[in-house]
Amino acid sequence: MTPTQTANILVQALPYIQRFAGKSVVVKLGGAAIDKELDRALAQDVLLLRSVGVRCVLVHGGGPQVDKMMRRVGKEPEFRDGLRVTDAETLEIVRMVLVGKINRDLVATINGETREEPVAVGVSGEDAGLLTVAPRDPALGFVGDVSQVRPSVLHRLLDEGLTPVVSTIGADEGGQPYNVNADEAARAIAVAMRAEKIVYLTAAPGLLEDKDDPSTLVPRLTAAELTGRIAGGSVHGGMIPKLRACADAVEGGVGTAHVIDGRVAHALLIELLTDAGIGTMVKKERDW
Amino acid sequence: MTPTQTANILVQALPYIQRFAGKSVVVKLGGAAIDKELDRALAQDVLLLRSVGVRCVLVHGGGPQVDKMMRRVGKEPEFRDGLRVTDAETLEIVRMVLVGKINRDLVATINGETREEPVAVGVSGEDAGLLTVAPRDPALGFVGDVSQVRPSVLHRLLDEGLTPVVSTIGADEGGQPYNVNADEAARAIAVAMRAEKIVYLTAAPGLLEDKDDPSTLVPRLTAAELTGRIAGGSVHGGMIPKLRACADAVEGGVGTAHVIDGRVAHALLIELLTDAGIGTMVKKERDW
Amino acid sequence: MTPTQTANILVQALPYIQRFAGKSVVVKLGGAAIDKELDRALAQDVLLLRSVGVRCVLVHGGGPQVDKMMRRVGKEPEFRDGLRVTDAETLEIVRMVLVGKINRDLVATINGETREEPVAVGVSGEDAGLLTVAPRDPALGFVGDVSQVRPSVLHRLLDEGLTPVVSTIGADEGGQPYNVNADEAARAIAVAMRAEKIVYLTAAPGLLEDKDDPSTLVPRLTAAELTGRIAGGSVHGGMIPKLRACADAVEGGVGTAHVIDGRVAHALLIELLTDAGIGTMVKKERDW
Amino acid sequence: MTPTQTANILVQALPYIQRFAGKSVVVKLGGAAIDKELDRALAQDVLLLRSVGVRCVLVHGGGPQVDKMMRRVGKEPEFRDGLRVTDAETLEIVRMVLVGKINRDLVATINGETREEPVAVGVSGEDAGLLTVAPRDPALGFVGDVSQVRPSVLHRLLDEGLTPVVSTIGADEGGQPYNVNADEAARAIAVAMRAEKIVYLTAAPGLLEDKDDPSTLVPRLTAAELTGRIAGGSVHGGMIPKLRACADAVEGGVGTAHVIDGRVAHALLIELLTDAGIGTMVKKERDW
Amino acid sequence: MTPTQTANILVQALPYIQRFAGKSVVVKLGGAAIDKELDRALAQDVLLLRSVGVRCVLVHGGGPQVDKMMRRVGKEPEFRDGLRVTDAETLEIVRMVLVGKINRDLVATINGETREEPVAVGVSGEDAGLLTVAPRDPALGFVGDVSQVRPSVLHRLLDEGLTPVVSTIGADEGGQPYNVNADEAARAIAVAMRAEKIVYLTAAPGLLEDKDDPSTLVPRLTAAELTGRIAGGSVHGGMIPKLRACADAVEGGVGTAHVIDGRVAHALLIELLTDAGIGTMVKKERDW
Amino acid sequence: MTPTQTANILVQALPYIQRFAGKSVVVKLGGAAIDKELDRALAQDVLLLRSVGVRCVLVHGGGPQVDKMMRRVGKEPEFRDGLRVTDAETLEIVRMVLVGKINRDLVATINGETREEPVAVGVSGEDAGLLTVAPRDPALGFVGDVSQVRPSVLHRLLDEGLTPVVSTIGADEGGQPYNVNADEAARAIAVAMRAEKIVYLTAAPGLLEDKDDPSTLVPRLTAAELTGRIAGGSVHGGMIPKLRACADAVEGGVGTAHVIDGRVAHALLIELLTDAGIGTMVKKERDW
Repeated sequence: MTPTQTANILVQALPYIQRFAGKSVVVKLGGAAIDKELDRALAQDVLLLRSVGVRCVLVHGGGPQVDKMMRRVGKEPEFRDGLRVTDAETLEIVRMVLVGKINRDLVATINGETREEPVAVGVSGEDAGLLTVAPRDPALGFVGDVSQVRPSVLHRLLDEGLTPVVSTIGADEGGQPYNVNADEAARAIAVAMRAEKIVYLTAAPGLLEDKDDPSTLVPRLTAAELTGRIAGGSVHGGMIPKLRACADAVEGGVGTAHVIDGRVAHALLIELLTDAGIGTMVKKERDW
Repeated sequence: MTPTQTANILVQALPYIQRFAGKSVVVKLGGAAIDKELDRALAQDVLLLRSVGVRCVLVHGGGPQVDKMMRRVGKEPEFRDGLRVTDAETLEIVRMVLVGKINRDLVATINGETREEPVAVGVSGEDAGLLTVAPRDPALGFVGDVSQVRPSVLHRLLDEGLTPVVSTIGADEGGQPYNVNADEAARAIAVAMRAEKIVYLTAAPGLLEDKDDPSTLVPRLTAAELTGRIAGGSVHGGMIPKLRACADAVEGGVGTAHVIDGRVAHALLIELLTDAGIGTMVKKERDW
Repeated sequence: MTPTQTANILVQALPYIQRFAGKSVVVKLGGAAIDKELDRALAQDVLLLRSVGVRCVLVHGGGPQVDKMMRRVGKEPEFRDGLRVTDAETLEIVRMVLVGKINRDLVATINGETREEPVAVGVSGEDAGLLTVAPRDPALGFVGDVSQVRPSVLHRLLDEGLTPVVSTIGADEGGQPYNVNADEAARAIAVAMRAEKIVYLTAAPGLLEDKDDPSTLVPRLTAAELTGRIAGGSVHGGMIPKLRACADAVEGGVGTAHVIDGRVAHALLIELLTDAGIGTMVKKERDW
Repeated sequence: MTPTQTANILVQALPYIQRFAGKSVVVKLGGAAIDKELDRALAQDVLLLRSVGVRCVLVHGGGPQVDKMMRRVGKEPEFRDGLRVTDAETLEIVRMVLVGKINRDLVATINGETREEPVAVGVSGEDAGLLTVAPRDPALGFVGDVSQVRPSVLHRLLDEGLTPVVSTIGADEGGQPYNVNADEAARAIAVAMRAEKIVYLTAAPGLLEDKDDPSTLVPRLTAAELTGRIAGGSVHGGMIPKLRACADAVEGGVGTAHVIDGRVAHALLIELLTDAGIGTMVKKERDW
Repeated sequence: MTPTQTANILVQALPYIQRFAGKSVVVKLGGAAIDKELDRALAQDVLLLRSVGVRCVLVHGGGPQVDKMMRRVGKEPEFRDGLRVTDAETLEIVRMVLVGKINRDLVATINGETREEPVAVGVSGEDAGLLTVAPRDPALGFVGDVSQVRPSVLHRLLDEGLTPVVSTIGADEGGQPYNVNADEAARAIAVAMRAEKIVYLTAAPGLLEDKDDPSTLVPRLTAAELTGRIAGGSVHGGMIPKLRACADAVEGGVGTAHVIDGRVAHALLIELLTDAGIGTMVKKERDW
Repeated sequence: MTPTQTANILVQALPYIQRFAGKSVVVKLGGAAIDKELDRALAQDVLLLRSVGVRCVLVHGGGPQVDKMMRRVGKEPEFRDGLRVTDAETLEIVRMVLVGKINRDLVATINGETREEPVAVGVSGEDAGLLTVAPRDPALGFVGDVSQVRPSVLHRLLDEGLTPVVSTIGADEGGQPYNVNADEAARAIAVAMRAEKIVYLTAAPGLLEDKDDPSTLVPRLTAAELTGRIAGGSVHGGMIPKLRACADAVEGGVGTAHVIDGRVAHALLIELLTDAGIGTMVKKERDW
């Protein structure tokens, strides 16, 4: 490619940059579909977006890694209605894996891509009251629902040019930690931050009419249409909580919510800075 | 006690408060001698000091807890010259235990003692380049020495009224994490922050002339005297690194360094805000 | 007392400190019941409260001292309905005694208790338009009612860590000074500052059911109950203006108003930072 | 005069305004030669200078008024080498007269001339450690020499657009007040503020070759020339301390020092904003 | 004149200075009646007003100078209903003359009168979106009406102590420049800045009952009265757009609007800082 | 191209973005080789660089356009040693063309490419004392050399996110304008701003060994080597002043100086954000 062609591509990103500069974008990263190389590409995307003034917050889960660690110490994971039954010992393992391993690996990957001062900072929902939770159901143990978000710690880090990576452990008023669903926590954070976008990186191309046929991707729909589809039973499996979170996010004031394929390198950048839409976009109103 | 007696005690703390307000104090907390109740007392001390304008940073270790976790996953801890041999798998466990468990428990304990907004925030040395390290010795694996401290992330949190709790994992320029000795890391942070004090909370009353006789406590000595005693062989065991760090700290510009008994409830408050000296104090010059 | 007991007492103040940090407290000090030693204790209280982030403003009167000075220059004090008849010469004496003597003595006492930079600053209601007044009654001469409070000069001093000591001389639009009742002026300042508390230090234990029996102290009542008692005639003498000011203060938005015994050393500290209630507290609503 | 002539006069002040905008000017006002009408003219000058960005600080004395008050309470003033012997009772009277009467009258006069918010604020050298003093001579009692100036309280007031009026009572470290010579205090304040000018308003036209012949006015001289004249015995009486203070001020870094006739209405304005020099000017170097 | 008389004149400006300090004043300068000497007087007025805290914005036209330049390059000016028909070539000449000549000359004149750093800065309505316009009428070519004002660039310059001189070229969303009527643009800027005053400097003494008899000057009238007069046909020629703009300005929230005689030296200063009214003043309500 | 390829290209710019973010870059644009389409590409480059935190200042010349305008009004351009002889009338035309036409066209082009608020602001060297000049030679008339640069107006605009476009008219202390060589002015501004880079966009590929053979481009050389070549006579024509300015710039502290081909679309972006070097780079030391 000639230098001029390269420059043209950069210039084509300009209108997108102008649109998103100064806006907040929450990126939810699942534990499932992510590997080392993809993390590096994601780190580059986040750093590039930061360079053009986008305020990115990374929120991560980590189900499979927790399962693996539990089994390693001889404990069998147990789920009820898709939610992890979390006794005190499980909570401790969840916390160690999320805060002490996955979060750390993401921070290390981002900081490894910076040339000047490292910018990534790990944050747990317990820090400075970021995620206050209420217990969901005694039968689930230490599983909580977000009851309050104090996003000031995130805003402060972003104001200083730092990039927060958030583990979704919350705490009640007494400081007791709880396990919080990461899709839900990301949505609550995006709403509290008045984010422009929330992006769910998943191991699927988005919402498919026929879940086995990628060509049936639904590129965009409204929150109401989405709720209708979920109610109608045409959405399946792990897509349900993500898409429900998308609908809730845009109802809560987030500009757009996306479910995109985290297995595609630089999927985030493609979605934000190029003409190529990717995955499924949810908006409150049909304005396209 | 009458209310007036109570008030008198509060008033007696006033000169100490006036002396330390606005100053930074680094508190190193060992993994060994600390239990839940003592942590709660320490949390109260830190919150009280914060209320009177002291800028406290907590730095913690966690050797015993790491050993326990390693054994739980079937790995035997190995040491060379008192330093943990740290292969990749060990590093991952160290990091999970320090950042994902001990740090979290301290944050939770402090936040559980606040009435208004929670103030504790967990920080790892990897965050925003807080601790940059160089590898010490290939035979030790991922064990690093602090080569640079960027304390700005701590100053910013303190400026916002937040209380940082620091895990001593560092990273090299490429983002690769390393295990760092917590006594050393605390000293490096205190020097970089131009702290007024560094306080080592240990499982001993301080430096004893006769290590089996608490009545032989050395209440204060200069860095030179301390270095002499270490060279002379009269200091033993785990006291050596702590006391050497004390000498280095005051040589590096920290006002005073203390080794005090972390098993005494509110030891930190007693040292800072009351007439009762406690443990061993190290200063650069003999000015008492 | 052991160091640990001492530390425990300090720690018991923590919840109160957390509650009042950053809040404003106006303390009215009568001219009657105060002596040198008590002033020193009060100075310590104010400095300690300042250290924990309470924004204290001292407002003082000085009737007895004015009387004494007037007689010294051969002028007999004259009162009508409890208010000092204030001709030009009397006004000059009032102003000299309040601003040039009592205020100065309080500033000196507080500054004598500081270890670092002195923090007390004398302020007269005439400064920067703090107290604008309208004349009350031609028969009283230069006696004024507060018509406007400009608290910005107080906020600015407090923002800088300084402690204002206020003499209650006001001025009209043309700069003409007036004598202002100190209980009233303190109330007006507290309301204008949106203070959390106003505390009247008096020469009595508080409101007593039987004014000769301290055991009949009324520990707390609402503004409405207080107004009822005053209307019913069961409150007597100098207590009436103070308690009326208390009722007005809480009606005007001040959190709580207190009449406490200024003859008890550290009464202010006992009221604010210990479990021991002291004197009479007035609130708008019964919420205890 | 036509409007255009009026406008021309305003415009002629422009170069002076441009020269002094943002600079500090300390004005010392003696107790002797000032009356009500002149105070009003001075207040207007100070307000006009403030309007054009000059940072004016007024410092006042008050010898005659103190004498009068002392006699009124039956105490005979006593002097030694021109300095007032100041026992505790005298100190109290000095303080009352300076802080509680003269300062207040000046504040009232200035605030009476403002149309918007009043801007004058009384300050004593005791406030916030403005003037720290050391005792001069036990035989003189509470007479102090300025050992330290903390001008921050003045800078802060000026930054807020307020105009400080300073009484020259100082305090030692323990808060004990002292009487301070006002000429000296003004000089110390001007030096500490790095003032552009210090202006002494006196009851004389300036330094006269022949003190009985106003036509022998010395319009300008250097600090060295001035010191020579004083040493040579050709300067007399009350002029000596003022002129010595002028020499010390310019040696200490103040741009120019002036002794001008305070009995001329608007003398300050004439000196600063018109072509007409007035009185005697002292500079460090001869550059005119 | 004696120095004291001079000082008295300065002091008489004080109430006006106090009234206008911190307020914005927009001054419209026509192309017609202004010559070099008058510009210098105006520059002095603007600098003096700036010195006393008035935030002056100069807006200029330049019809005659444009005509002259057009003829110089062989193009005959053409008008329709008093508006210049502006084809692309004419627009280029208008822009060169306004931005590249008249604006520059004003900036040079003001900067030539400053003693310290130059303060005048030329601004075109195209800069930073100051004047967004919509085309008025295809038959007029590039003639626009102001549809949006972004005064932030002016406020920022004023905040820094700089004095903006504005040429009234606007631009549409695509950056295409347009010729804008200067009277209208000045009005739109004054309204957007919430100015205290707008002053039109013209080649006439103001609104005259009989346009040939200066003694018939209408010194003040309300917007409604003015509108009535215009509707009634008693206002003539070039006065109509200026007076209509005055009425619109005060209806839009500007305090007062003035048409004054720009041929009188220092007319601006006379209007703002002296007792002598000059020209015609328009207010929303009759409150004089 | 696939979206992933596009994203890869964006990501490849990341290291360059990280290197230049927050740095100042001065871009000199000649009057010769630039057309409308290239200006649009340059506008996009500048906006993109601004988006990633580069502080761009555009400096322009305009010789050919001035010649054209002069001839249009019947005046023949006259040069002496390559410098335009500038009488008063010529100066007026130069100023109109540079400030009122070329500068305006560049501002319009940049503002036409923005989606949100327009960001370009025209500045002349006369504004706020940006370029103070001294006359060069009486025989040349109003031709000046830069004697002082006050870059604060540029820094302030950049701090606010605005992009200055600078015309190189300067002024002497009295406000008299002068024509300044644009290459020189750009160099002086870059040095005064401590710019990271200065880039000369010219109508040539850079410095060529053989000026007729583009394959003989000298990609990089030191200031000393460059000075040697100029002295040796191997550099020709219009390249000499540009290259001399490059040498002076890097000697004056600018990081690197570049002469690149302004006829290549997006040449600026290619130079700054891609691996492809373009044109000739000058550095102080040989460190490549």
